[in-house]
Amino acid sequence: MPVYKAPVDEVTFLLRDVFHLDRYNNLPGFAEATPDVVEAVLGEAAKFSEAVLMPLNRLGDQEGCRRNPDGSVTTPRGFKDAYKKLVEGGWIGVSAPAEFGGQGLPVVINQAVSEFFCSANMAFGMYAALTQGAAAAIAVHGPPEQKKLYLPKLVSGQWTGTMNLTEPQCGTDLGLVRTRAAAQSDGSYKITGTKIFISAGEHDLAENIVHLVLARIDGAPAGTRGLSLFIVPKFLPAADGSVAARNAVSCGSIEEKMGIHGNATCVMNYDGATGWLVAEPNRGLQAMFTMMNEARLGVGVQGLAMSEVAYQNAAAYAKERLAGRALTGAKFPEKPADPIVVHPDVRRMLMSMRAFNEAARALAVWTALKSDIAHRSAEAKEKQAAEDHLGLLTPVIKGVLTDQGFANAVLAQQIYGGHGYIAEHGIEQFVRDARITMLYEGTNGVQALDLVGRKLPKDGGRALQAFFAEVTAYAKERGADTAMTPYVKPLSQSLGDLQQATMWFLQNALGNPDNAGAGATDYMHLFGLVALGYMWCLIAEAAKSKAGAGGDGAADRMSQRLATGRFFIERMLPATATHLARIKAGAASTMALPAEAF
Amino acid sequence: MPVYKAPVDEVTFLLRDVFHLDRYNNLPGFAEATPDVVEAVLGEAAKFSEAVLMPLNRLGDQEGCRRNPDGSVTTPRGFKDAYKKLVEGGWIGVSAPAEFGGQGLPVVINQAVSEFFCSANMAFGMYAALTQGAAAAIAVHGPPEQKKLYLPKLVSGQWTGTMNLTEPQCGTDLGLVRTRAAAQSDGSYKITGTKIFISAGEHDLAENIVHLVLARIDGAPAGTRGLSLFIVPKFLPAADGSVAARNAVSCGSIEEKMGIHGNATCVMNYDGATGWLVAEPNRGLQAMFTMMNEARLGVGVQGLAMSEVAYQNAAAYAKERLAGRALTGAKFPEKPADPIVVHPDVRRMLMSMRAFNEAARALAVWTALKSDIAHRSAEAKEKQAAEDHLGLLTPVIKGVLTDQGFANAVLAQQIYGGHGYIAEHGIEQFVRDARITMLYEGTNGVQALDLVGRKLPKDGGRALQAFFAEVTAYAKERGADTAMTPYVKPLSQSLGDLQQATMWFLQNALGNPDNAGAGATDYMHLFGLVALGYMWCLIAEAAKSKAGAGGDGAADRMSQRLATGRFFIERMLPATATHLARIKAGAASTMALPAEAF
Repeated sequence: MPVYKAPVDEVTFLLRDVFHLDRYNNLPGFAEATPDVVEAVLGEAAKFSEAVLMPLNRLGDQEGCRRNPDGSVTTPRGFKDAYKKLVEGGWIGVSAPAEFGGQGLPVVINQAVSEFFCSANMAFGMYAALTQGAAAAIAVHGPPEQKKLYLPKLVSGQWTGTMNLTEPQCGTDLGLVRTRAAAQSDGSYKITGTKIFISAGEHDLAENIVHLVLARIDGAPAGTRGLSLFIVPKFLPAADGSVAARNAVSCGSIEEKMGIHGNATCVMNYDGATGWLVAEPNRGLQAMFTMMNEARLGVGVQGLAMSEVAYQNAAAYAKERLAGRALTGAKFPEKPADPIVVHPDVRRMLMSMRAFNEAARALAVWTALKSDIAHRSAEAKEKQAAEDHLGLLTPVIKGVLTDQGFANAVLAQQIYGGHGYIAEHGIEQFVRDARITMLYEGTNGVQALDLVGRKLPKDGGRALQAFFAEVTAYAKERGADTAMTPYVKPLSQSLGDLQQATMWFLQNALGNPDNAGAGATDYMHLFGLVALGYMWCLIAEAAKSKAGAGGDGAADRMSQRLATGRFFIERMLPATATHLARIKAGAASTMALPAEAF
Repeated sequence: MPVYKAPVDEVTFLLRDVFHLDRYNNLPGFAEATPDVVEAVLGEAAKFSEAVLMPLNRLGDQEGCRRNPDGSVTTPRGFKDAYKKLVEGGWIGVSAPAEFGGQGLPVVINQAVSEFFCSANMAFGMYAALTQGAAAAIAVHGPPEQKKLYLPKLVSGQWTGTMNLTEPQCGTDLGLVRTRAAAQSDGSYKITGTKIFISAGEHDLAENIVHLVLARIDGAPAGTRGLSLFIVPKFLPAADGSVAARNAVSCGSIEEKMGIHGNATCVMNYDGATGWLVAEPNRGLQAMFTMMNEARLGVGVQGLAMSEVAYQNAAAYAKERLAGRALTGAKFPEKPADPIVVHPDVRRMLMSMRAFNEAARALAVWTALKSDIAHRSAEAKEKQAAEDHLGLLTPVIKGVLTDQGFANAVLAQQIYGGHGYIAEHGIEQFVRDARITMLYEGTNGVQALDLVGRKLPKDGGRALQAFFAEVTAYAKERGADTAMTPYVKPLSQSLGDLQQATMWFLQNALGNPDNAGAGATDYMHLFGLVALGYMWCLIAEAAKSKAGAGGDGAADRMSQRLATGRFFIERMLPATATHLARIKAGAASTMALPAEAF
């Protein structure tokens, strides 16, 4: 059976020593996030993940969700009870506004909680995450009466939420959406169409399901400029907030899929279902993007979460499984063989995962703090800078953390040898579950195009310049510190690769946009490596300042961080050169063949 | 439903234009492999793969194998009939000696046939491949009466074969094998123990199953030096070759696993089963290695096979699925959107797979020809050089073709977007099936160690020096041809990286073997890139000489090969630099943490 221990100490170290949470006490909700409160929240989230969610993970995979003849969906055994506990713990509202029943804590705390939940049980964690996303969209775009009616239910988890974008003929290209909305005299709309791949579209966990649906009002323009966002509840709510009549929306089938079997992926049929506009007509895509951007960061964190739990299991296996002897001589001569953790190639795999996980978590924390600033700061300039960061880093976090999160699940499986292929160890489930993160909320290719095609040029490149300026200033300032040189110097070199790549796009993509498209994925990964390298510099600096301090192995942990950072810098960061070489190769050979040659 | 068209033209081009099969006519069996014969064999294999095996692939995954209460195993519907056709077609004996009923054709032909079978249905193909492996081990090591009794049955496919190495406590480290063999007065042995992960261990396809089993004769030394290889048939054969009494070997259970569900992965219980020695006592490992080395090459080809079929399906999907518009302007303005094949990032993925597949197939063909020389040449020097090549390239082909084959299945899945995660498209099955190739027949980490720890230093580095000499001489000779410069110059640079890495091991691994272990996987991939780059040079040269010649689009195919080679050289080969950087980083940061820190 797989194991999991939530990395509370890691999160605490990042919040306290690397990003200095207390410096943000001017923002609403932060003063309340005292070290004691944070410790309590993370500790409880860890307990819930380890004791309630993890034990259900494999069962959820095996049983999956079942659609009954009446269209209702039964979740795996134990999910209902776990969901009840999730609601009782107030976990969906950790960072939701207090006026709607939330705890109002910083987003960065909620993100750590989400990571724990997803590591322990990704399919289950999605029910909560989608509800938070729906609440966020309504909170930003919905009219006051919608907020009053829906937000308390979503924030508590009494009702859950979904996102309905994809249709059989369109996913990425939402301009092709065919679902129609017909205006009614009472201000409501009748929604008709078919949506597919709707996670948590139907289930037995909550009394109501609030679908946010992209549809086209009759007569609206073609393409994305004619899309509106609707709220379509499974049960129509009465004025007092109780559930009334069943709406004309139903689950037509559940997809048979590679993983996340514990989450029902539904085909949803809208047969003249009653819905209400969220946001202005024809402004649906913008409103949906509020939800989607949060979701993309969340999916990046899922990638990290899968990498973390896969790593933990592989590490445990590597310390237990006996095979061969250390190349430098037997480490446990009294045993029939040494544990495989002695082998350098096994170490390489473990260290690769660990060096990624620790920096990826830092990147997620850093960016969540920017999200908090963007949402809560009263200062326009600080707010704008935070929004710039968010826009720029969201595709990087989504794309890189999920590509690497999946790759790491595969690496963890590799450490098990043939046993990794067998279901009972649970590691192959992590691989199957992690695979979806590279696909949903926009494939990673779409993230790369968003980064290169939209985020780089936005506002004259302001966000990118700010990122370059921050890292450059950091490197200049710390470059003189010889203790930091082994970290900072390679970072500067890789930053140089990223700047060269950017310059190459500037010079070559205007004339031929295919040159940007062909290099987009490499650019995203190059950017990710630089960002993760920067995180390692920050971590190393904090760890150095704490080295030798603290009992209970805390000093050991600091020196381990320094060594892990060295591994990242020496072994992983150099890949920026290859990404740069690929980008500079341009689109010529990529686009050389006629389409029919494939 | 997935599609597959066997790449007969690709194989023919390699055999005829790149490797000049007719130059080998001095070897037994080659003169018979006339272009007509090869065309007929490949054509029939293609038909069998496309019409019989492919249609069973998804069904086999869904149904899987079922163990019945009596210990018998039922294969998926249709497998039995397909196996009957396999036997009727004589497919197991394509390159087996004529004296035992085989066709005696070159191994290189059989390998192409195996690729087609595995692309179409990997789980099914394994039944044939394991039977060929068992036959090879008996042919090389068995006493004459064993050959006479077993080989005709295995070569025809009337009986199938298995390899029994792994036990619960040992996989890679076979020194820990506990299965015992007790000598009987009649020269036979009683075999007792438990073997796990036995592919095709029990099934309903053939009348008998011939298990080759590693066990320790009572009183034999501990470790691998005390292992002997036994032949343990499911049914004891009568002198006339008919099956007689049931032997005391049975399938205890079938593993629930990630993929290859159509192949029964069995726990085999040996309860005093009757067996006979193959090869000398305590020389079992050497004999098993005959089987294993062939199997490793075969598994490398499985990696290619999965990459090929995944590519073909992704290419078909990319030409069909509509989303967005080409960055350079709509290509199909009359359609609601362009097919996604117009997008550079989709092209990048398709080209990456294709550029790998074509060179990987060349590498496999090149090496299979060396296998033919090693087995069939009468000239000692030529034979030795071929054996050197085989030993050196086997771990590279196994490790690189399966790592990349899996990565390409994942890439193909990515092209489908969310649809790639849904079972009905069949693409996620390729990912799950391909995953095993990195694990079985020695994990890829074990391949890397075999390459670096055994194959490099063997015979004073003779094999490696021969490889370097060949590529260096080639580059020198062709370097002056300006048409070849874009291919040859980067190859020389990457060869330089490989030579530097080798030198670094020489200088740093003697003092600390962990420096070799920590760089082994990167070395294997660096080697693979150079070998594939060399293949692209050979392909490009052949394609250039044929450019403009031939009708029916043959000239187009040649120019497409040149462009695909350019893609490999510009986009994939540069990764050698990163591998070199990692190797040179040494073991320090990899091994820095104490084991308990993981």
